[in-house]
Amino acid sequence: MKTTEITVLEDIELDNPIFIEALPGLGHVGKLAADHMIDELGATKFAEIYSPTFPPQVIVKEDGIIENMKNELYYLREVGEDNLDLIILVGNTQSLSPEGQYLVCKDILEFVKQYGIDRIYTLGGMVTGQPPESPKVFGAATNEENAELLKEIDIELRSNDGGIVGASGLFLGLGVRQGIPGSCLMGETLGYFIDAESAEAILNKLSILLNFDINVDKLEERAEETRQMIAKAQQMEQDMINKANAGNADDLRYIG
Amino acid sequence: MKTTEITVLEDIELDNPIFIEALPGLGHVGKLAADHMIDELGATKFAEIYSPTFPPQVIVKEDGIIENMKNELYYLREVGEDNLDLIILVGNTQSLSPEGQYLVCKDILEFVKQYGIDRIYTLGGMVTGQPPESPKVFGAATNEENAELLKEIDIELRSNDGGIVGASGLFLGLGVRQGIPGSCLMGETLGYFIDAESAEAILNKLSILLNFDINVDKLEERAEETRQMIAKAQQMEQDMINKANAGNADDLRYIG
Amino acid sequence: MKTTEITVLEDIELDNPIFIEALPGLGHVGKLAADHMIDELGATKFAEIYSPTFPPQVIVKEDGIIENMKNELYYLREVGEDNLDLIILVGNTQSLSPEGQYLVCKDILEFVKQYGIDRIYTLGGMVTGQPPESPKVFGAATNEENAELLKEIDIELRSNDGGIVGASGLFLGLGVRQGIPGSCLMGETLGYFIDAESAEAILNKLSILLNFDINVDKLEERAEETRQMIAKAQQMEQDMINKANAGNADDLRYIG
Amino acid sequence: MKTTEITVLEDIELDNPIFIEALPGLGHVGKLAADHMIDELGATKFAEIYSPTFPPQVIVKEDGIIENMKNELYYLREVGEDNLDLIILVGNTQSLSPEGQYLVCKDILEFVKQYGIDRIYTLGGMVTGQPPESPKVFGAATNEENAELLKEIDIELRSNDGGIVGASGLFLGLGVRQGIPGSCLMGETLGYFIDAESAEAILNKLSILLNFDINVDKLEERAEETRQMIAKAQQMEQDMINKANAGNADDLRYIG
Repeated sequence: MKTTEITVLEDIELDNPIFIEALPGLGHVGKLAADHMIDELGATKFAEIYSPTFPPQVIVKEDGIIENMKNELYYLREVGEDNLDLIILVGNTQSLSPEGQYLVCKDILEFVKQYGIDRIYTLGGMVTGQPPESPKVFGAATNEENAELLKEIDIELRSNDGGIVGASGLFLGLGVRQGIPGSCLMGETLGYFIDAESAEAILNKLSILLNFDINVDKLEERAEETRQMIAKAQQMEQDMINKANAGNADDLRYIG
Repeated sequence: MKTTEITVLEDIELDNPIFIEALPGLGHVGKLAADHMIDELGATKFAEIYSPTFPPQVIVKEDGIIENMKNELYYLREVGEDNLDLIILVGNTQSLSPEGQYLVCKDILEFVKQYGIDRIYTLGGMVTGQPPESPKVFGAATNEENAELLKEIDIELRSNDGGIVGASGLFLGLGVRQGIPGSCLMGETLGYFIDAESAEAILNKLSILLNFDINVDKLEERAEETRQMIAKAQQMEQDMINKANAGNADDLRYIG
Repeated sequence: MKTTEITVLEDIELDNPIFIEALPGLGHVGKLAADHMIDELGATKFAEIYSPTFPPQVIVKEDGIIENMKNELYYLREVGEDNLDLIILVGNTQSLSPEGQYLVCKDILEFVKQYGIDRIYTLGGMVTGQPPESPKVFGAATNEENAELLKEIDIELRSNDGGIVGASGLFLGLGVRQGIPGSCLMGETLGYFIDAESAEAILNKLSILLNFDINVDKLEERAEETRQMIAKAQQMEQDMINKANAGNADDLRYIG
Repeated sequence: MKTTEITVLEDIELDNPIFIEALPGLGHVGKLAADHMIDELGATKFAEIYSPTFPPQVIVKEDGIIENMKNELYYLREVGEDNLDLIILVGNTQSLSPEGQYLVCKDILEFVKQYGIDRIYTLGGMVTGQPPESPKVFGAATNEENAELLKEIDIELRSNDGGIVGASGLFLGLGVRQGIPGSCLMGETLGYFIDAESAEAILNKLSILLNFDINVDKLEERAEETRQMIAKAQQMEQDMINKANAGNADDLRYIG
């Protein structure tokens, strides 16, 4: 089993597409924004990505149907005024291990490079410690030109203030090394609920940057669904942990 | 050393066998049920599986004889009214590492596919937080058709409530990707003792699904034996931990 | 870099040697016993073993000279009344990772098999929770015949009481799979000091099993030296941890 | 992706250069000293080193520009009275995993060996538990001759007091095995702030050993900058952790 297994569902050609990464992270900000784009703009899935570095489990979805841990690639053609082609990376997980993170991001970048991508946007959340009334969007970029573009539309540039952990950071870093410029948009969030307002804030900025229109009415609805699903899962997990702790179920692990 | 080493003990041919996974997990529910099936129905071991991703230890069994950490494959021919062939996966451990879990499950699935398996059942426990009077059996499946079959015999379908972690989830997920449908039966359990009643509950459902009879009289006896062995091991482990903590025995680890 | 790098220092031929494993573990019982044998019986080092799975550090020995983390192989010819050849494995560490444990033990076993080994003894400590007046020796073996031999000389066989973790377990388990029988001698110990009495107890049993004489006068002296070195290292480590905790030195780790 | 990717920026030839390692560690002592040398003596970067074993993130530097986690090699020609060529290894990180540490250090050593290095100095901090008025410099070496040289200039040799963890230890250990002698200079530090005085202390000793002059006026200034950057990053990190803990943001990780 290779570190990254990519199943191509449709052979496509795109015109210098922009690559947008939005895997799950703080406040589900990036993921929520991208899932909404995929839905509203009618993106088409063209590849699925699996890795043994993902969490070793499946997820139980509606009515008892299981789903693999996976990442997915969607495409959109001629979006907005500038007729841009887009490739969007979403999914239900990121790699568990540090090395897995690097290897999977690198393999995905190699794969999407075949389609001629020439810019990268990564979407995420950022916890600032303030409950945001109206969430700010923070930014970082691979070079000054791109940083300047963010600043022009009132994205606050971060400065000497730590790291961008996970796929949102690594795609930019790997891109730099291969001459593909990129930017990261981070929506301010408390980080512990599904943050539809923060997702709306970054969608708003992204739509200016890429010059397209998007209706955000259903965004809060989508957030609410995800919230309920997670609340249920957390409750079960908590019960499980409580019981396990009570009786040291761990000790059962390896006894034949 | 390969990630998975499979030693074949007997060359066999089977008629589209059903693959049943029952490695150790919560409440030992799946393992206890499968060990009982193997014993009562007289299954034959035909392969042993080793992996460097298993815990780095051996187990001391009766009268000082050591046993390797391993998984084992048994087969049964023409079981029940439908004359079904079965392959049953049991063992004293699962992989320690997330990546090991994926790799070993994938290698085992590749191996049993050679025998023509066309359905997968995975057996496990599920902690619900209620001390069950009479344990329920929960279910999940790879498609709606299989989910429906579970529902028909009063298995409660889980829905949007989290994941199935470890081999019981992964075999279903890997099966989906290869077009092999499957279901998971999870016996309600508190998870911190060897739960014979929960094992009986899933055996009962499995015998309806596969249409065979099985005597469960000795199930409680088997649970009691396992319980005693584990209690003894836990006591020693606890003593060891107490002493180690008292004196930082860990610090001895790497001093020459 | 391979998982195990073995540097051969001397080409030797041995007559069906017995392989004795004594890497560091609880109470340093096995290591102390083997180091004493090497010294008293005048064993010769013939190979050094390195692995990237060992702890990523060096040790500072006397007068500021550093030493690599490593394992070492010694040989002895025609020991005792039965003129037995021995290979003894000692060192200042074991692998950190579970998978490293398996891989390094397997590589070492492959290597010593070239010399025609036909029996394995592994030496270790066992924490029982009682401060032993005169430490017992516990045993386990790969088959009944070997277990019987231990019992005959008053080694108490363990039974259904947990595992043997690390190299002392794995060499027996890997040996079983290759048809090389073996036994483990475990000296009762509190585990948190260098236990010369427990080491003497297993040396006493081993000398009966292999029919040789050994003077144990200097064993306590050797233990005392090791004790002082460890006490000093622990003090420094503790100071370092105290200071690090005080100021979150960890956060410095990755800032450029 | 290989474990270590080395990008050569300039083809150079050097005359038996001395290899100096100064990756981040306790109190940033080694790194601060080496960064200062690079600046004051005008060293030239000739290679960059990347690894999937580094932390899976990027760092946000001034004005929103991101930087990869990386190590860097600089060279200097004809330094000081003895006209010594130097290769200096610095960077913003070390490998996260134990095995990564070994593999990356080994690959870097192989790379710099091509330039004919014949001595290694590794620079680091050492926490002693005393707030040092004027920080001592401790030392260790691969052989007695080198240890003696340290002693002659009042570097206090460590003795039987534990290990040197990470790159500063491993380069010496790997060097020993390849016949390249080396020494480690460790500046006494509390370890939880950027310690300019400790860095000055080791620079002072190094300049005696290698017989060069260096102005240390700007060292405190450099330390102050780093301090501010880290303080800001820590504050954000702490806020993030507080918020994450409050709401179990971790549980969001793997829900699709």
